[in-house]
Amino acid sequence: MQQQSSVTVVGGGVIGLSVAWTAARAGHRVEVVDAGERRASWVAGGMLAPVAEAAPGEEELLELGSESLRRWPSFAAELARGSGLPSGLRREGTLVVGVDGADRAELDMLADHLASLGRTVTRLGGREVRRLEPSLGPAVRRGLEVPGDLAVDNRLALAALRAAAEAAGVRFRAGAARRVRPGEVELAERTLRCDVAVIAAGARSGELHPALTGRIRPVKGEVLRLRARPTALPPPARTVRGPVRGRQVYLVPRDDGGLVVGATQHDAGFDETVTAGGVRDLLADAERVLPGIAEYELLEAVAGLRPGTHDNLPVIGELEPGVLAATGHHRNGFLLAPITADAVLAELSGREPPVAGPVPAGDGGGRPCKW
Amino acid sequence: MQQQSSVTVVGGGVIGLSVAWTAARAGHRVEVVDAGERRASWVAGGMLAPVAEAAPGEEELLELGSESLRRWPSFAAELARGSGLPSGLRREGTLVVGVDGADRAELDMLADHLASLGRTVTRLGGREVRRLEPSLGPAVRRGLEVPGDLAVDNRLALAALRAAAEAAGVRFRAGAARRVRPGEVELAERTLRCDVAVIAAGARSGELHPALTGRIRPVKGEVLRLRARPTALPPPARTVRGPVRGRQVYLVPRDDGGLVVGATQHDAGFDETVTAGGVRDLLADAERVLPGIAEYELLEAVAGLRPGTHDNLPVIGELEPGVLAATGHHRNGFLLAPITADAVLAELSGREPPVAGPVPAGDGGGRPCKW
Repeated sequence: MQQQSSVTVVGGGVIGLSVAWTAARAGHRVEVVDAGERRASWVAGGMLAPVAEAAPGEEELLELGSESLRRWPSFAAELARGSGLPSGLRREGTLVVGVDGADRAELDMLADHLASLGRTVTRLGGREVRRLEPSLGPAVRRGLEVPGDLAVDNRLALAALRAAAEAAGVRFRAGAARRVRPGEVELAERTLRCDVAVIAAGARSGELHPALTGRIRPVKGEVLRLRARPTALPPPARTVRGPVRGRQVYLVPRDDGGLVVGATQHDAGFDETVTAGGVRDLLADAERVLPGIAEYELLEAVAGLRPGTHDNLPVIGELEPGVLAATGHHRNGFLLAPITADAVLAELSGREPPVAGPVPAGDGGGRPCKW
Repeated sequence: MQQQSSVTVVGGGVIGLSVAWTAARAGHRVEVVDAGERRASWVAGGMLAPVAEAAPGEEELLELGSESLRRWPSFAAELARGSGLPSGLRREGTLVVGVDGADRAELDMLADHLASLGRTVTRLGGREVRRLEPSLGPAVRRGLEVPGDLAVDNRLALAALRAAAEAAGVRFRAGAARRVRPGEVELAERTLRCDVAVIAAGARSGELHPALTGRIRPVKGEVLRLRARPTALPPPARTVRGPVRGRQVYLVPRDDGGLVVGATQHDAGFDETVTAGGVRDLLADAERVLPGIAEYELLEAVAGLRPGTHDNLPVIGELEPGVLAATGHHRNGFLLAPITADAVLAELSGREPPVAGPVPAGDGGGRPCKW
């Protein structure tokens, strides 16, 4: 691949923007094609929490996530320099909490698993949890403190990425891609030519190239945005997540007093409906952890479609010459944005990718494309 | 008062629009001054249900409401003729339901109260309730069928009223009134002159004239708008309301498959915050009555400020010569719009009002002004 390629990135979410910005800074001529729809990145909580979210059997994802987390502070600093805008990076870490006996067993399992991987976490009782975060309720009976995790304000970060990309020379085009072929991105009204096309279209990626068909599925997530009122207890300083009677809930504080509560998970196709039942469950689980939330303002309930894969690992790499994939990040788009951008840049430059993962052959081409 | 006055109506909600439209059709020159804010009429459910909502001690309100309800079919028909638009009038009636023992006792009391007033209601057991409305859940153990009640689609009705008023020659001016004096409506940037000013500014009315100060208080109500998805049970045909474990909830179906669920009540000043706790309660109560609602799309959660009075009766009439009030309708703005418009027209024409109610002296003038 030549040093200075023309690159068309399909998708203007956190992955597409990170790839475009990074490629442009390396001297490539970059255009982003963006359908302008609300996307998963807009809905996301912005947790950068590979350790708190580690699951047995997903050690590769933990490794990839940890590697990307390590890059986030400098990624955010460069982003601030390149855009003049904040990304709302928070370093208070994560508190994983549990409510009932089964939740506590899950926390113990997570702690054992992380210990077996050499990760440090601190086990806490209910009283110790409330000493760290006084707004958490009496139902919380167990906690794990995970100090290294980060969080960003997803909407601030998206605005900063867009501004930084524009400042680095990235051009933006409104349009919905229908198909990606070597050197070609087909829109409804015209076909764009380029040296390399990068598919970063999230849940819609499977529709764009045969090698992705059936590998990327939409996983609906409903998310609430709230804000503490002056009369209410302030939100926790840390990201709080955990099983609440078996259901996963997270509470991610924002610098402005806001709080993001997520997220449901539904394998229901391309359905972005916010349901009464989804909102009911999120409110109930969040209130169990943070009773004061009842007095918070409910600003927004939205749904997005995560790009899921069968093993929760992203698909990053060449599908065929002239077509790269950077998709399938499921719940981890923000976390994995820095390492994904670096990996795509390595591909564009013909270098080795930054982390070697398992490499099943791409379905649509001869090159390995799975991390 | 002369036959053809220039009338300035302060407020573009259901009361202001109904008064303006009615006065214009009678030959008055009418202008509506409207601050353009979201108002209680926009948030409202649109129930026209004086009987289902009757409470012991509020017999005057029941009489006034029944009188206005009687006018609604012709009011809606004229509105359709005058605007060419539908108001979504529904004639399926109301079903009052109860869940626990205390709710059932409340229903029995309501039935006895209505029977003592000579009103016909039918008492139903849980199975009979579900025969009428199969989507209601097993928790519903008692019901009262109130066949005469109506409902309108509040937003369709507002659009129709505005169109009909414009067609009848009413002029509209954007602006927030600060003070109303005889023949004067003071805005921020200028003062409007008129023969008669009508204060129909809902919860803000108390700020406009000393005779209303302290008589009108804002009562916050949170309301949800939902829509049945194709896979969910359809909404009931009737308006369903009732105490659910002591809390009042109503479910008002719309012609398009929509469902309005309301409403919380908070005496909390000029606060229009939608709270997590309010939404939680509405969803819980509605789901108890209509379990399928969990699969409905949650379209909107909004709050409005009802203009409350100490006895839940509106304030309609002359405050001083050249200043009329048409406010304080609390939860009954849509229900009482036709009779309020007729009463204001009678005042403008120097005729007797259409219904004689109790007439305590207006605080700010010599004339009776309370219904």
